[in-house]
Amino acid sequence: MTFQLQVTDPHSKARAGEFATAHGVVQTPIFMPVGTAGTVKAVHFSELRSQVNAQIILGNTYHLYLRPGLNVLENAGGLHKFIGWDRPILTDSGGYQVYSLSDIRKIKEEGAEFRSHIDGSKHIFTPENVIDTQRRIGADIMMAFDECTPYPCEYDYAKKSMAMTHRWLDRCITRYNETEGHYGYHQSFFPIVQGSTYKDLRKQSAEYIASKGMEGNAIGGLSVGEPDEDLYEMTELVCDILPRDKPRYLMGVGTPANILEAISLGIDMFDCVMPTRNARNGMLFTTQGIINIRNEKFKNDFSPIDEYGSCDVSRTHTKAYLRHLMHSGEMLGAMISSVNNLSFYLWLVGEARKHIIEGDFSIWKKVTLDKVMTRL
Amino acid sequence: MTFQLQVTDPHSKARAGEFATAHGVVQTPIFMPVGTAGTVKAVHFSELRSQVNAQIILGNTYHLYLRPGLNVLENAGGLHKFIGWDRPILTDSGGYQVYSLSDIRKIKEEGAEFRSHIDGSKHIFTPENVIDTQRRIGADIMMAFDECTPYPCEYDYAKKSMAMTHRWLDRCITRYNETEGHYGYHQSFFPIVQGSTYKDLRKQSAEYIASKGMEGNAIGGLSVGEPDEDLYEMTELVCDILPRDKPRYLMGVGTPANILEAISLGIDMFDCVMPTRNARNGMLFTTQGIINIRNEKFKNDFSPIDEYGSCDVSRTHTKAYLRHLMHSGEMLGAMISSVNNLSFYLWLVGEARKHIIEGDFSIWKKVTLDKVMTRL
Repeated sequence: MTFQLQVTDPHSKARAGEFATAHGVVQTPIFMPVGTAGTVKAVHFSELRSQVNAQIILGNTYHLYLRPGLNVLENAGGLHKFIGWDRPILTDSGGYQVYSLSDIRKIKEEGAEFRSHIDGSKHIFTPENVIDTQRRIGADIMMAFDECTPYPCEYDYAKKSMAMTHRWLDRCITRYNETEGHYGYHQSFFPIVQGSTYKDLRKQSAEYIASKGMEGNAIGGLSVGEPDEDLYEMTELVCDILPRDKPRYLMGVGTPANILEAISLGIDMFDCVMPTRNARNGMLFTTQGIINIRNEKFKNDFSPIDEYGSCDVSRTHTKAYLRHLMHSGEMLGAMISSVNNLSFYLWLVGEARKHIIEGDFSIWKKVTLDKVMTRL
Repeated sequence: MTFQLQVTDPHSKARAGEFATAHGVVQTPIFMPVGTAGTVKAVHFSELRSQVNAQIILGNTYHLYLRPGLNVLENAGGLHKFIGWDRPILTDSGGYQVYSLSDIRKIKEEGAEFRSHIDGSKHIFTPENVIDTQRRIGADIMMAFDECTPYPCEYDYAKKSMAMTHRWLDRCITRYNETEGHYGYHQSFFPIVQGSTYKDLRKQSAEYIASKGMEGNAIGGLSVGEPDEDLYEMTELVCDILPRDKPRYLMGVGTPANILEAISLGIDMFDCVMPTRNARNGMLFTTQGIINIRNEKFKNDFSPIDEYGSCDVSRTHTKAYLRHLMHSGEMLGAMISSVNNLSFYLWLVGEARKHIIEGDFSIWKKVTLDKVMTRL
């Protein structure tokens, strides 16, 4: 995987670039829709391709490992073939879900023991088997197995956890180097910076991760409840240390404001459940501002959901109709809202890229944020 | 609305025809997907158009009256505009849902009193206000307000109910004739034959309905639990009485076998929740047979859902993937299954029409039923 840094914004640290994978090219900055269990919730793959214009999606190793399981995925010829998606896929390492979803979990040097949230069965994720798992899933980009510390986090715990994440990283890399692309194509590997909200730890972790010379690098442990100032401070500090010539991925972030801010600090890749989760709750992102579509005031609002939106459903269906669907608990409500929100996110990063290339990113960012973060 | 009877099968009573509405032409025999509350559950309108090839859909007056309500629909310019569907729409009269869904209901000569299943509010449907309601919804085809008797039904009750349905019909027709297309285009009106499973009542009702000379005629009160023999016997008896030169609509029917059998008896129009409801439960209709996709045996079946299906999702997604989605409770499972099943139903009636025109309907029907009703 070669990352081409194409343009750097003269007024910020924003960059436009692109990288190639076995399943195609990704233009950065990019947002990756989350396809938890082999599906971006409530969205057809044909819509992801032609309406959302998703270039790469994310799969959750934890979910896929438990269901449908690795044997099924392997028999299908990997996740791409199983779900019918021929563009790039990135998988997380499963660590985050082990900590947040499973009933009982025990983190030790060996790895993380947990019980399945589906049937209570006992499992262990280790740095080695998580690499093997992502190999078998067939991800174009595989992530390191790390501990994602909560917020707030005691300094001592954050420091110890970071050190273990680094030791786990070495074990991941050893296993990564011992193995090959499971389906005959190259699979990249990204390590993850941790260190909670402590500057010295983040610096130390970023330097350690940078020294590994992998094809891309990620920042984890943020967007877990800390104030935006901490998110931006840590992101900037880490971006300044991570190599310029590799993509930088800020995991689990975030709001449209978070994303544009992080782009201006040098981030290239994002993922977040916010657009799809909020869609299912009736919170819509549009080019004109944020809408709570369940609101009474949209009952007789027959204007399009987003007149300037980039997907068909946003331009053709009205706010009143979508409100009716959400109030009636109809699936089509979640379906339309999810396509709308993901299209918005992809439009946002696409516009950011365009304005980085055109040289007016900072001005565009200010005007755009004022508009899209307004509550209508 | 003019019905053109194009071809009559020489070996059965099957017919191919077409009728024109203000929103376009419908070729019969036809199946109408049920769009209960202004949405065919889990299906985008773009899919209904290009994948399912639906020519006409059904809306439920009871649901639409309660939510979003007539004012919203009227402000939108009618149901077509509200939901973004520019092809024909037929609405039922709401009677069936009053009897099956509302908590408390009281049927009297004036009409049917009921409490909303949503908020318990009290309402009354009368023959007159149901016409007004369907006018305001803007249906291309409006249905008479009738009492749909349950099965089994005592003869005396069936007889009295039928007589009231006939009196209600006269009131419907009076109101229909007093009013005009609410949005400037013509709205047709179909009366409904009742009479439970009693031949003399069905004959009497069919003669009464036929004598009204409306633009089309419907058969109600079937597919409510009676044996298939009764369904077919009543359908044949009624079809032989209803005018040849008007479309005949068999309400709420049915399985693929029911539909092909009823076509052979002279029915032109169908609606049923079966394809969409069964889809959400994982029961799939395919050109190769019936599939319970949740079954263990599909876990590693990477063949297409329906290799010869008429919609993209059926040909591109595998049985193993759809099984995974259904087991994971993912919306995409219901979405794919619903499009698959509706496409199958529209394919079935489309093929029936083709073979009626080609003159080999009866042979085709036998071969096809053996195949599509097989449990895979």
